[in-house]
Amino acid sequence: MAIENKAPGKDVSAEDLDNKFPLVAKKNPEHRSCFKVQGVEFGGDLVPIFAGPNMVESEELIVSTAKSVKASGAHFLRGGAFKPLSFPYRSEKYTETREEGLAWLKIAREEAGIPVITEIMEERFVDAVAEVADIMQIGTRNMQNFPLLTRVARTGKPIMLKRHFGCSLRDWLGAAEYILVEGNQKVILCERGIATAHTHRSSSRFLLDLQVVPAAQELTHLPVVTDPSHATFWRPWVKPMALASIAAGADGVMIEVHPDPDNAAVDPLQPIDFKAFADLMNDMDAVAKAIGRHVR
Amino acid sequence: MAIENKAPGKDVSAEDLDNKFPLVAKKNPEHRSCFKVQGVEFGGDLVPIFAGPNMVESEELIVSTAKSVKASGAHFLRGGAFKPLSFPYRSEKYTETREEGLAWLKIAREEAGIPVITEIMEERFVDAVAEVADIMQIGTRNMQNFPLLTRVARTGKPIMLKRHFGCSLRDWLGAAEYILVEGNQKVILCERGIATAHTHRSSSRFLLDLQVVPAAQELTHLPVVTDPSHATFWRPWVKPMALASIAAGADGVMIEVHPDPDNAAVDPLQPIDFKAFADLMNDMDAVAKAIGRHVR
Amino acid sequence: MAIENKAPGKDVSAEDLDNKFPLVAKKNPEHRSCFKVQGVEFGGDLVPIFAGPNMVESEELIVSTAKSVKASGAHFLRGGAFKPLSFPYRSEKYTETREEGLAWLKIAREEAGIPVITEIMEERFVDAVAEVADIMQIGTRNMQNFPLLTRVARTGKPIMLKRHFGCSLRDWLGAAEYILVEGNQKVILCERGIATAHTHRSSSRFLLDLQVVPAAQELTHLPVVTDPSHATFWRPWVKPMALASIAAGADGVMIEVHPDPDNAAVDPLQPIDFKAFADLMNDMDAVAKAIGRHVR
Amino acid sequence: MAIENKAPGKDVSAEDLDNKFPLVAKKNPEHRSCFKVQGVEFGGDLVPIFAGPNMVESEELIVSTAKSVKASGAHFLRGGAFKPLSFPYRSEKYTETREEGLAWLKIAREEAGIPVITEIMEERFVDAVAEVADIMQIGTRNMQNFPLLTRVARTGKPIMLKRHFGCSLRDWLGAAEYILVEGNQKVILCERGIATAHTHRSSSRFLLDLQVVPAAQELTHLPVVTDPSHATFWRPWVKPMALASIAAGADGVMIEVHPDPDNAAVDPLQPIDFKAFADLMNDMDAVAKAIGRHVR
Repeated sequence: MAIENKAPGKDVSAEDLDNKFPLVAKKNPEHRSCFKVQGVEFGGDLVPIFAGPNMVESEELIVSTAKSVKASGAHFLRGGAFKPLSFPYRSEKYTETREEGLAWLKIAREEAGIPVITEIMEERFVDAVAEVADIMQIGTRNMQNFPLLTRVARTGKPIMLKRHFGCSLRDWLGAAEYILVEGNQKVILCERGIATAHTHRSSSRFLLDLQVVPAAQELTHLPVVTDPSHATFWRPWVKPMALASIAAGADGVMIEVHPDPDNAAVDPLQPIDFKAFADLMNDMDAVAKAIGRHVR
Repeated sequence: MAIENKAPGKDVSAEDLDNKFPLVAKKNPEHRSCFKVQGVEFGGDLVPIFAGPNMVESEELIVSTAKSVKASGAHFLRGGAFKPLSFPYRSEKYTETREEGLAWLKIAREEAGIPVITEIMEERFVDAVAEVADIMQIGTRNMQNFPLLTRVARTGKPIMLKRHFGCSLRDWLGAAEYILVEGNQKVILCERGIATAHTHRSSSRFLLDLQVVPAAQELTHLPVVTDPSHATFWRPWVKPMALASIAAGADGVMIEVHPDPDNAAVDPLQPIDFKAFADLMNDMDAVAKAIGRHVR
Repeated sequence: MAIENKAPGKDVSAEDLDNKFPLVAKKNPEHRSCFKVQGVEFGGDLVPIFAGPNMVESEELIVSTAKSVKASGAHFLRGGAFKPLSFPYRSEKYTETREEGLAWLKIAREEAGIPVITEIMEERFVDAVAEVADIMQIGTRNMQNFPLLTRVARTGKPIMLKRHFGCSLRDWLGAAEYILVEGNQKVILCERGIATAHTHRSSSRFLLDLQVVPAAQELTHLPVVTDPSHATFWRPWVKPMALASIAAGADGVMIEVHPDPDNAAVDPLQPIDFKAFADLMNDMDAVAKAIGRHVR
Repeated sequence: MAIENKAPGKDVSAEDLDNKFPLVAKKNPEHRSCFKVQGVEFGGDLVPIFAGPNMVESEELIVSTAKSVKASGAHFLRGGAFKPLSFPYRSEKYTETREEGLAWLKIAREEAGIPVITEIMEERFVDAVAEVADIMQIGTRNMQNFPLLTRVARTGKPIMLKRHFGCSLRDWLGAAEYILVEGNQKVILCERGIATAHTHRSSSRFLLDLQVVPAAQELTHLPVVTDPSHATFWRPWVKPMALASIAAGADGVMIEVHPDPDNAAVDPLQPIDFKAFADLMNDMDAVAKAIGRHVR
């Protein structure tokens, strides 16, 4: 009885590194991409922090959040203007912000003096988003939306590519190759939770996969960051998973911050408030320094 | 110690049926959508069969396959002209067919007199694909590409919505609601394998989830079909999983058929040849009849 | 960058077939074990059916169930006297039956004239169970309890080895080898559901893996049966999954049957009643005959 | 269409805390078990470290390892004398040590002056193992071997209960309750990797679930430790996952250490050598101190 496969497996093979994602693959064990976005360095000893609300709910909310997280030391303001929703109906509070949200994000960026990252989910809004965003975010559900990847890559803007919750490291690196092949080198990989048999709360849909941090860093020169807020979906777990991310070697961490978490328009169980974020910045910096890196 | 969740869980709740996907949800246990596509009835006793190659490799290949599967009793010819590829580089055999492939598919449709289903993965090709396709297929990787869903829904064409390999039944039904809310009622759900801890061969990336067939039919009136070829990725398992699909109550089955499987341009481990398909049609019809349905 | 593994992977390799489970592995593609238990043949065209309650609740319950399922054509009576419970506290209705339950099972066996299968979960009860059981069942949680496997194997009794819900096919075949290496050839493998990211109901903990039926049959000569009741945990899905099991090529099916399902002492959502079982026997036989096998 | 479940779900409910594992459940958010084993405190600011080889291969190996890890600051020597093997055949190097291994472990314990933890997998060896072990380890495959849990609990010895790779937090806490109900309060929970769709290397079978650390600590007063070596199965990932464990709040870490990792009798891809362990102790202590705890 022979077992013949004649096909690539589920995990990355040496052949993949050479032929499937040669631009994404490391050339040698020390090979790490290092680039700056608005003066903030990725791929070095700094561990940049992205903070802000899930959704840009109002001008006031995003401006006050921008100022607060900037004061606490965050490097980027995050906030969604265009957001994929699992169901087509919006709740009352969840108005369609879109272009309006983008405008508010721009105001917050300028008033607080902090660069921004925001999601792009449709080709027709690429130019509008690129005008405001310092980093364009491809969300988990669009990781393998290859036409979108190609289109966004061509803006030349830095891109954060979130891993799909059902996709392998192999798929993720393949998606990143779609960006690099367009000549855009500034790609940040972001792990944001995977679908597993057990997530420990019925409301938590995902599990933060920290093993993928060293696993990805072993194969690619691109920086790898994590998003503990979306992964855990549960406020009390955000801090331990954020600190664990840094200790695991993550090259950045994204944290959902909201002035009034219980009344956030979407996913109110996951954001932390301004004070908790300020404290977390101190804790993250302490852990980073313990391993020879720094958050501040 | 209280456990408060205050958030929807991973599985469908009664509230979801009323508010998240009311158009997709059954109104009563007997509620089933019934509609015809080119005279082929979905949602009744017939179990329509979709057959053809993964990729429309050449005019000759697709025409000969169309004639053969039609002669064996298949109701629809499947074939990919536009295909999502996990990596940006094409092998020599895997040329970019696209519009050319679509033209070949149209020829096959006419010469063999069989309606066709083909994948649409980009908004800019929607009109071109809609001109040829009798059913527009949304692939697994685009299940939650909501702008694409909306755009394709508006063509009014029947749509096959493949379940993403990492998504829940709740997500899947939510994606279908995006189509129905546009006034397009002709939606066919297709299970094509999920990512699990064990798939039994290193080359097989997915596991056909047949439990989702009765689970989906319990909640929605839409027809639910399966694709054992893409799920198993392994020729010898296609027949048992196709027969099991019908016995589980699937409202249709999609089978990859190729004149020369070992030399298929993509995924050569999964297609079956003309003779095997003809035999499988007989076997599927026998199983269908055992449960009061029929394939022919 | 080389990727070296120097270790066996998650899936079965050719080397495993030769060295890890040579007794379990097929010698050639047609190699199938064929053996009889109380005159009922396994590994042939017959698809034996095991039916009965989850727990042997009382003498009256098990005797009446034995007579009913026997009359409907079941080949074996199933019923648990010794049962693993996830928590140490028993509900009022869930008394510790144990030896008493075993005695009731023996009475049912004799009065109805039907061989029985029951679970053994502790070495110290092996002899007591072996005296009553025609087939000794190793439950999912004990699949890798190797001392127990060895001890039960030495009774010489036929053994049903349930797959652990978290274990691979490789692990399962390795566990079976522990039995065969003791000289006991009469091993029946039973798939009873796996832990996956999505099971489609919050009360359903497992997903019936039908892909493992052809996958296991490809590698081993041992018969492979399924248990749709424990896998789905939901009455309405038992019939479609039982029929699908037979169509997938399962060499037997185990069905939970209870005279009053809603009031079953354990897991009341999964058993079907006598009438539903009688009907299911007819349906299973029809599907079996459609593929050249038979249940009756 | 109503969705009725009438059954406990996959995740822990408030009812579980009261009725399924009341002894394991926290009484209030600050409730933490605190106990000493040979003077080493669990549940306090110290993060105890367990180090040693997978298997007690020889007296010389275990004595030299004991002395080295003790010198580096480890609190416990780990080493398997009785080990569950997935397949019944031992390689030449993998002789059956058992009682002999236990004797070597006892010598190492005395010569190095370090308490030991070792696995118990059979009731008949409980007394022999209890005589040598300071902590009795229940391995992943025996997590739901309830008779064994009960028997080991009755020795009164501290017990480390490893989580099964396919089991939920709910199952794990239920298994721990089997120990506490016997009056044995000294239980240490250990996460050692779960089976998931993606583990990032074909040789790695598991993924370290760090989200379960805060999730378990939210519900139970018992200390929660991790085993990054068995989870990752890959030497280069052990350090990042060990540091991440401490940052996530783990109450202890188990590390596989071998004098000559490449020639370890079992699983040679996962152990680290003496020098790497000494360095890791420093790194773990630095991270622990960053969060107000300590390893030394």
